[in-house]
Order: sequence, then C-alpha cells, then structure tokens
Amino acid sequence: MKVLLAEVNVSEGRDLEKIAQIKEALISNASVRILEVNSDKDHNRTVFTYSGEPAEVLEGTKRLTQKAVELIDMTVHTGAHPRMGAVDVVPFIPARNVSQEEALEVAKAFGKFLGGIGVPVYYYEDAATRPERKSLVDIRKGEYESFKEKMTKEEWRPDEGPFEFVPKSGATVTGVRFPLIAFNVNLRTDDLAAGKQIVKAVRAATGGYQNVRAIALEIPDKKMVQISMNLTQYQKTPIHRVFETIKSEADSRGILIADTELVGPVPVMALEDLMKFYVRCYGFNMEQLY
Amino acid sequence: MKVLLAEVNVSEGRDLEKIAQIKEALISNASVRILEVNSDKDHNRTVFTYSGEPAEVLEGTKRLTQKAVELIDMTVHTGAHPRMGAVDVVPFIPARNVSQEEALEVAKAFGKFLGGIGVPVYYYEDAATRPERKSLVDIRKGEYESFKEKMTKEEWRPDEGPFEFVPKSGATVTGVRFPLIAFNVNLRTDDLAAGKQIVKAVRAATGGYQNVRAIALEIPDKKMVQISMNLTQYQKTPIHRVFETIKSEADSRGILIADTELVGPVPVMALEDLMKFYVRCYGFNMEQLY
Repeated sequence: MKVLLAEVNVSEGRDLEKIAQIKEALISNASVRILEVNSDKDHNRTVFTYSGEPAEVLEGTKRLTQKAVELIDMTVHTGAHPRMGAVDVVPFIPARNVSQEEALEVAKAFGKFLGGIGVPVYYYEDAATRPERKSLVDIRKGEYESFKEKMTKEEWRPDEGPFEFVPKSGATVTGVRFPLIAFNVNLRTDDLAAGKQIVKAVRAATGGYQNVRAIALEIPDKKMVQISMNLTQYQKTPIHRVFETIKSEADSRGILIADTELVGPVPVMALEDLMKFYVRCYGFNMEQLY
Repeated sequence: MKVLLAEVNVSEGRDLEKIAQIKEALISNASVRILEVNSDKDHNRTVFTYSGEPAEVLEGTKRLTQKAVELIDMTVHTGAHPRMGAVDVVPFIPARNVSQEEALEVAKAFGKFLGGIGVPVYYYEDAATRPERKSLVDIRKGEYESFKEKMTKEEWRPDEGPFEFVPKSGATVTGVRFPLIAFNVNLRTDDLAAGKQIVKAVRAATGGYQNVRAIALEIPDKKMVQISMNLTQYQKTPIHRVFETIKSEADSRGILIADTELVGPVPVMALEDLMKFYVRCYGFNMEQLY
C-alpha cells in the first residue's frame, strides 16, 4: 500500500461556508482519508491534511485548490499568519512506500496544474529549483503585499504559471518535505531552569541530536515543564532515542516524566522503531499491520 | 476509518491457475487491501487475508467465495489439513472502529449469500446460533467425509442454505472472532527445561496470563529456545506485558532475550499499548496515524 500525505494551507479560516465547499471539492473527487481540517479565525487560514494513494491525493489536491482559487480573494484578505496566496503552501509528504521521486512527480504535476489555471507557483524544499527557494520563509518574505514588486525580479520569477502578479490569487508554494513529528515530554517539575538544561541535551543547536528542534516551556495549569519538540527526520533520529535521553537526563536531576504527547498526524512508520527497540521485534514489517 | 479483516480459507492449494482466478474475483470487485495469500500444497489449502471497509470486505468475500465454489470440487479433494468444504472457514475480524455487531452483520449477510448460492453454512464463534457450534473443531469434526451423514441429524442442520449434503461444495463455517496475535520470544539459551519454566509463568493454563496460549520449542539452527505464543485478546493481555514478564523471568535465570517475532497480520491497535507503556504517550489516538 502506498500512502502520500498532503497538507494544504488555504487563506480562509473564517467563512465556514467557503471552507465546507473547498472540503467538498476534495472529498467528492478523490478517495482520500482526511486526517484533520484545522481552521483558525485569527490566522484566517485552514489546513487540510489528508492521505491516500499518490494519484488520488494529486487528483483531490487539484480539485480542492481549484475551488479555493475560485472562492478566495486575496485583495481583501487579512490574518495573523504570514501568507502569499489563496492557496498558500502545499507540501506533499511521502508516508509509506512512496519514494522521494514519486512524491516529487506529484508536486510537479500539481504545480503545472495550478500554473495552468493561472496561479504563479514556486517549488520549495526537496522540489526547489534553486538553493534560495529551499526555504518557505525565504520565498514568502514580504508576504502577499510584496509580490507585485518581488515577482518582477528575475530571481523571483515563478517556476510555473504566469510571470505577472495575480492580485486575486497571489502565489503558491508547493514541494516535498519529510514528515515532521511533534513530540512533547512533560516533566513532573515546575523548575524551568532544569527543563532548559534537559533541552540542551537533545536539541541539535546545543550539541544534542541532529534533526531535533526543541524548547522548554512552563505549563502553569499542570505545574509542569514541557520539552516541546519537532523531530524532522524520525528515521534517523527516532522517538525512542530522544525519549530515553530525556528520561535519563531528567532522572539524573531527580525529575520524573509525567507523560508524553504526539501532536497531530504521525507516520505509522515511526512506530517501527518502537517495536524494534522496546520489544526487540527486529524483523517486523509495517506491512503486517491492518 | 473502519477496518474489517477477513481470512478466507479455501480448499485449493495446488492449482495455481485456479488460485489466481479466485484472487482475481476478489480484487476486481472490491477495494480491499490484500495482506497475505498463503497457499500450502500439502494442506491443499489457500488462506486469503485482506482488510478494508466492511461493505467492501463483504462484497469481495462474496465474489471470492462464489468463484471458489465454482472452481473447487470437494469430491476429489485430498490434503493434510482438516476441512469440510470448498470454502472452508471464513472468519471476519473487527480491526479498527468496527463493532462486534457490525462484524456480525457482515458475517450473517455473507452466510445468507453463500446459502443462497447453494452451500450449507454454519455460524461459529461469536456468530454461533447454539453453544455447541462455538468451536470450529466441533463443527468440523469428522471432516468433509462425515457431513453427508452428520447433516441429517437435527443438531447439525445448517444455519443457512440447503439442509442436504452438497457433494461438490461440502459445507462452510463463518463467523466473527477477535484478532489473534502470534508472538514469539527467542531466548539466548538452548536449555529447553528453562524455557518450559518460563512458559508456565505466562500461559493461562499454568497460572499465567489470561488469553495467552504458549509452548516452549527448541530452534536447533539458532541454538535457541523459543516461547511461541498466541495472544487471543490483546486489548486485555497486551504484548508489552507478556514480553516484560518473559524478560524478567528469563533474567532471573540468567537468560537474555535475543529477539522477538510477530508472525502474520497484526492489528495496528495492538501498538497503542506499546506507545502508552514504553513512551508514556497516554493520550495517543491511533487515528493520528497515516
């Protein structure tokens, strides 16, 4: 079974009727499994997260974004979240038995489609056509309001679609990225300083593990400190290793772990390492799961 | 997402052409995911294991079994495995978000279908209509050869289909059962006596855990002893608990665990306990997985 994930960010988080129409365009045209539809009024943004066979995900994404382009007018858009376009960012994420190449093909087919209906498109992350287009933050710099000017420069000429600014739709970024895992560990302490010491042990930037972004936060309600993390390459830096390191660092300070949280969608493949490490089931193949 | 599993046992394990036709009848008519097609020449039997939405699994099972009934002639069948019919046993197994009732509806709809095309059908396990039909072994006693006589008795009148023996098709057993997990733990020892002591600690019959069937076996190739188990109710007696008990029993005898094996299909829900026990992710919802 092949599974590709799409996380489509559109610039409408307030008009529930429009959001419902956009969702309808997705589900009525493709056999995908919706994991989450998350609308934020302040951000004025909705994220549709869904998975399925690559061809189905491509088809559904075309229909969803076509409807969003039709319904959303960026000339009147306001919201707290940085954005460039009606269809803002569309990452495709290989989840199961989908190669990087296959995911890239889907992203490029989608980019060509969206360009074809008149939206300027930039490829980012693993689909980037130039090094300076790797990062979403760099492409989006200046936001929607700056693009009329930005797009006139040769270095910011779109990869697909019209080379001129399209006021109604703005621009779209699409590409392929590795699945992120949002993993939090809650410590039975209100000692934030201790939490910050523990973070240092796992965060890449302070000598910890590659592929770990982490901060320590107070959770006043629970009188706990949380180590809040993104694991950006779980195959190289798996959940169990980060967890065990935090556990031993906490233990040496006389601090216990209360619990942990995995937030949002989690690739099932990330559980393979747990099976191997904790239960020593080294030969387990995730295809055995039903 | 709802997932129902079917494990269809048909009495043909030698004629690859017929097996391919039966498989074709399944996949060309339903959107199911095939987990395993296991043909055994000595047993002269093939097990098709597949999963999907309940309605798709029902549809696929109708088509598969109709083709098997058409192609298999029990009057000429020989094989080492006990059997009663061309379509021998068809358990439906609730895997994800499928209630017992829903699975029972599928089993009964399937039984009526098969009865309708002229095959005597018995319901077993959770679908049994009488206590003496709970167990497959009891229904199948005497095998195909005895059914001409057996079916004339009131207590063995079929639940669906004709009440007379059908020489070409024999009889079929269908019903609903809980998923089994086949879990083996390999010990770094060739001391079978120690293995047998450890088995006693986990096997229900000798004072161990409910829902655990277990034996100790030698694996001469590896110079190891294997604790070979079936966990019959993983939600009540989970993998991690059985594993940890074996680990501590082995440890107290100075024996290490080499590795473990999960054999065949494994319900993804069985991993939820691992997430909770080892990584303390108590709030994890398996629906987050993609």
